[in-house]
Amino acid sequence: MAVYTEVPDEELSAFLATYDIGTVLSYKGIAEGVENTNYFLHTTGGTYILTLYEKRVREADLPFFLALMQHLARKGLNCPLPVGNRQGEPLGRLAGRPAAIITFLDGIAVRRPSAQHCAALGAALARLHLAGEDFPMARPNSLSLDAWAPLFAQAEAQADTVSDRLAERTRRELDHLAGAWPQGLPTGVIHADLFTDNVFFIGPEVSGLIDFYFACTDALAYDLAICLNAWCFETDGSFNLTKGRAMLAGYQSVRRLSPDEVEALPVLCRGSAMRFMLTRLVDWLNVPPGALVKPKDPLEYDRKLNFHKHVRHAREYGLDA
Amino acid sequence: MAVYTEVPDEELSAFLATYDIGTVLSYKGIAEGVENTNYFLHTTGGTYILTLYEKRVREADLPFFLALMQHLARKGLNCPLPVGNRQGEPLGRLAGRPAAIITFLDGIAVRRPSAQHCAALGAALARLHLAGEDFPMARPNSLSLDAWAPLFAQAEAQADTVSDRLAERTRRELDHLAGAWPQGLPTGVIHADLFTDNVFFIGPEVSGLIDFYFACTDALAYDLAICLNAWCFETDGSFNLTKGRAMLAGYQSVRRLSPDEVEALPVLCRGSAMRFMLTRLVDWLNVPPGALVKPKDPLEYDRKLNFHKHVRHAREYGLDA
Repeated sequence: MAVYTEVPDEELSAFLATYDIGTVLSYKGIAEGVENTNYFLHTTGGTYILTLYEKRVREADLPFFLALMQHLARKGLNCPLPVGNRQGEPLGRLAGRPAAIITFLDGIAVRRPSAQHCAALGAALARLHLAGEDFPMARPNSLSLDAWAPLFAQAEAQADTVSDRLAERTRRELDHLAGAWPQGLPTGVIHADLFTDNVFFIGPEVSGLIDFYFACTDALAYDLAICLNAWCFETDGSFNLTKGRAMLAGYQSVRRLSPDEVEALPVLCRGSAMRFMLTRLVDWLNVPPGALVKPKDPLEYDRKLNFHKHVRHAREYGLDA
Repeated sequence: MAVYTEVPDEELSAFLATYDIGTVLSYKGIAEGVENTNYFLHTTGGTYILTLYEKRVREADLPFFLALMQHLARKGLNCPLPVGNRQGEPLGRLAGRPAAIITFLDGIAVRRPSAQHCAALGAALARLHLAGEDFPMARPNSLSLDAWAPLFAQAEAQADTVSDRLAERTRRELDHLAGAWPQGLPTGVIHADLFTDNVFFIGPEVSGLIDFYFACTDALAYDLAICLNAWCFETDGSFNLTKGRAMLAGYQSVRRLSPDEVEALPVLCRGSAMRFMLTRLVDWLNVPPGALVKPKDPLEYDRKLNFHKHVRHAREYGLDA
């Protein structure tokens, strides 16, 4: 949570003059968003988020992310709508960084989701998958199977300093995943990072999905596996079956899983746990001195991965037979 | 700029239930405010700032600050209005800290004020002084003359590491100020910290004065001296007479300075420069390791102080004869 880039008043005014959203009434840096700098922006035309994209987002990917949000919002999904400037272009430059203005969404990110929240999230995820069906652009998932071995190579030598025998455990699991990774599953646009901080609720209803900066083209059920990992474990590491059941039922109330997706769910959960364990491990081992952002614990995902190793069938996540 | 205190969802809900401002639609930490933690809060009742008071604000002073804001807002001054809870009380506790909800004010803090901004600020300052005339509470200025020697004592031994002969310069100036400090000037509520980040503009008009957490009872002209220091110097250290003239004329268009205030203005400017030099110097010499907030340069105010030493009459700040 940080404001990485300060925007001089004159540059902001010049930037906003390229949009047709009225004059500025207020703007304030928001202490939110690890990857980018976000400003709350109130104009005579409405309320917006002004995002400056920092180094961790590849500039070449931004047209995909912004076009996707426009596509989904126009299909009625509650997600931020990138606003086009007077040339119709959603992407500009401000203070030396790529920048976009997106509509502000009300809602609150729940920190401890209930089963009801999980059900609503499941349904919203399925709506996202359906709304993305006819999105014409594609972006390979740069953090899937092929990325894991190179990520692990960055961390392998020091892995055991984080947890006893983590290196060996991870090596074996990567071997297993390489052999067992499913092919040919229904594919489309996935969010790929739908953690609780990226989902807004008003009361029990999902009011918004945000932060599409990991979105890509991949197996739809993999997105569900990411959400099972992110939403259905308790802080003590136990899997909450009631929440899993709620999420899966919510999802299937909108989009029915195919038999091969059901079969693949346990290995997708293992792979998703591996992906977050590895990126967290690399970050954990490379905290710059004086970092403002506390790195997330990789072992949380090592423990989740261990849980999934013992799952034989999606029923164990709460899927109705 | 930081969010020092994280507020758990349940505690926020319980806190808001003590107010009659509707249900929460959104809240976001704002990367603004060095002293306190601020959340932007959107409810079905309106938009607000939720402030959690951190350690640098004395809890015993909060009733004064909040009552003052209520008084000023009700007199029509553009300043945040603390919202009373269902018991009519503007001060509560949240996440272990004193907390208040105040109305959100639109407007933008200008970083490089123009003469027009200075004129508007001068008039707004005078309106604040008039609106405070019948405010019944009092709070001595804890950062005025009597505080400077003890502040300097904290920094004296290391002062010369910051600037050559700073200790000697400051000692002499403190002696001078002790003898020359004016008595019996018109007194009332002053803001005492009206830097550019505490003044919002919409276009050329002042839309809000914020951050009353240094407000106190002191000579009104001292507030004007603080503003001359904060608004009318260029980044190269030069005094901008056009801005000074604009500010003083703006002030006098609402409240005429008395002859003794005019006469005291140079020494009040010296004292005000001393006050900010000293607090900055103490902060500068006591930056905790890993601090998120970069300390402000004390020498900026040492240079301003040096300018004021050569001023003989308020005309030199641009006051009309």
